[in-house]
Amino acid sequence: MSDRLTRLLGCPLPIIQAPMAGVQNSRLTIAACRAGALGSLPAAMLTPEQLRTEIQTIRAATDAPFNVNFFAHSQPQADTAQIQRWLNTLTAYYRELGIPTDTLSQGGGRQPFSTAQAEIVAELKPPVVSFHFGLPEADLLKSVKQSGAKILASATTVDEARWLVEHGVDAVIAQGLEAGGHRSMFRSTVHEQLGTFALLPQIRAAVTVPVIAAGGICHVPTVQAAKLLGADGIQIGTALLLSDEADTSALHRAALQSQRAETTALTNLFSGGLARGIINRLMRENGFIHPDAPPFPLAQGFSTPLRNAAEKQGNDEFSPLWAGQNAPLAHSGSAADIIAQLAQGWHAIH
Amino acid sequence: MSDRLTRLLGCPLPIIQAPMAGVQNSRLTIAACRAGALGSLPAAMLTPEQLRTEIQTIRAATDAPFNVNFFAHSQPQADTAQIQRWLNTLTAYYRELGIPTDTLSQGGGRQPFSTAQAEIVAELKPPVVSFHFGLPEADLLKSVKQSGAKILASATTVDEARWLVEHGVDAVIAQGLEAGGHRSMFRSTVHEQLGTFALLPQIRAAVTVPVIAAGGICHVPTVQAAKLLGADGIQIGTALLLSDEADTSALHRAALQSQRAETTALTNLFSGGLARGIINRLMRENGFIHPDAPPFPLAQGFSTPLRNAAEKQGNDEFSPLWAGQNAPLAHSGSAADIIAQLAQGWHAIH
Repeated sequence: MSDRLTRLLGCPLPIIQAPMAGVQNSRLTIAACRAGALGSLPAAMLTPEQLRTEIQTIRAATDAPFNVNFFAHSQPQADTAQIQRWLNTLTAYYRELGIPTDTLSQGGGRQPFSTAQAEIVAELKPPVVSFHFGLPEADLLKSVKQSGAKILASATTVDEARWLVEHGVDAVIAQGLEAGGHRSMFRSTVHEQLGTFALLPQIRAAVTVPVIAAGGICHVPTVQAAKLLGADGIQIGTALLLSDEADTSALHRAALQSQRAETTALTNLFSGGLARGIINRLMRENGFIHPDAPPFPLAQGFSTPLRNAAEKQGNDEFSPLWAGQNAPLAHSGSAADIIAQLAQGWHAIH
Repeated sequence: MSDRLTRLLGCPLPIIQAPMAGVQNSRLTIAACRAGALGSLPAAMLTPEQLRTEIQTIRAATDAPFNVNFFAHSQPQADTAQIQRWLNTLTAYYRELGIPTDTLSQGGGRQPFSTAQAEIVAELKPPVVSFHFGLPEADLLKSVKQSGAKILASATTVDEARWLVEHGVDAVIAQGLEAGGHRSMFRSTVHEQLGTFALLPQIRAAVTVPVIAAGGICHVPTVQAAKLLGADGIQIGTALLLSDEADTSALHRAALQSQRAETTALTNLFSGGLARGIINRLMRENGFIHPDAPPFPLAQGFSTPLRNAAEKQGNDEFSPLWAGQNAPLAHSGSAADIIAQLAQGWHAIH
């Protein structure tokens, strides 16, 4: 029982490096794999060709198993009236930052899992595939299963965990409310999101597959608390944002290492999807969650130009500073050192 | 270090029975005290005379120390336009349940800590006094301190914990987002609320006074996880809602023991203050948090008639079914048995 997750995943440690689109590539994946964890490659923002290259890069660097993460959202239709309202909401910022509004367009490069990606999975056979925002359509999921990949997916409620198990996942990631970045919610609303302290023991009681704790796991006591609450393993994201091998920007690193990291919030302003980041001006001035933000991922095309223009001035007030609620507990250093310390904590308690 | 909370409070166990206005009186307080925990009396809905009688009842039953809990909100002014909008929002429900709207008035019986209450504290000297929603004005707080009472208060962010310590509390209750009932927020918004998994270790690191974990602590693993995350003790509310000595209504007990307990949310619809309860029709149909709900506690006068009329029909869809996110882990039984089991879990880990 105690090693069933490592047996499932094939890596020595029951630790998954969380896929973090936008702040990492295969470099962090490889570092995590070499440290004995399951390294993850975020694929949602990669073209099929980039995905192929990245998988080949990982394979060239390590024999260890690794995970490729895809998004399983459905691509929404743009609502012209909503987009106009959203442009009106942001127009003063575009003016302030000198961005011509006729250059803007919806979108943002996050693609749902596609036939092209499924073909690469079938061909290159990554040992583990994880999904965010539910699972892809039955035929796509079937082709991933037929590739031999173990399948993981994230649940933000007990109901979502049961649904994922009914649809064939090999393990459930319990994504507590504390987690940084996008919430995987696909059958729940913001109101029903549970903290790790509640989500983890209840999912543990509800399913028989291995359960991986995510959200707030950032130092030895949180690792040990997750184990006591029934986790078979942990997924760590924020704990690695300051690692040498992450591509976290200098501005993002500075915010994470400041007292501002104490105050995060869920927001839909950047991508349209609900995600947790350090509070900045765009969030504060627009109520964090705005009804007119176009649905995920369409809002991305409207926030990225603000981010780019502001960051050129050394200003992080329009950047998605994704971070979990325990960001103040994260440390810098090599991914190997960070993982080794957390692993030691895991093994020190029974 | 390990027993500094019990030394502060003067009871054998580092366990506080959470004050739960509306679902308990001195009967639960006494049962908790006799079990070795710190029993609490919720005083916010009591008249000065009732408060006196309840304290005398506790003293007659036990020599053990106990806690009296007060609210420290400031009494808001009614906004006539807002109240009219709120009546309009609820008008269809009044019609459905046959409630004449000319009988309605704002209010709801939750009084902030007053001179009259401070006089009773000075006279009857409860060993511990706890506050929700911050602390009372300096002169009132001073008189409580002069009575010799140890002072506790709840923080929902790290900033609130630091503020409470600066203002002289003897211990901080870290109220994680998972907690049932009213959130103690007084310098933070709903967006900044932290799960127990993040709030507890960060408050532990930020203050030197004892820290009491609250929110999600409902069975042995959650007790032990709280201890690992740095708690000097725990406060349990939802874990006692099904106890023999609580006055939890039959409808409320039935909801807690159903699968509905899996789905709670924060709402301001009942009292105007943000509180966590099992989702029901009033919450679902009004977006959980409504901008037109009059501020705490004024909304209470508009929701209580709905509750009373619906409950007469055996219907809990308009009742505040306060519950924490770990309500599904709670058990029925005597308060003594529930407390003994959690205490055993606490002492089994170091």
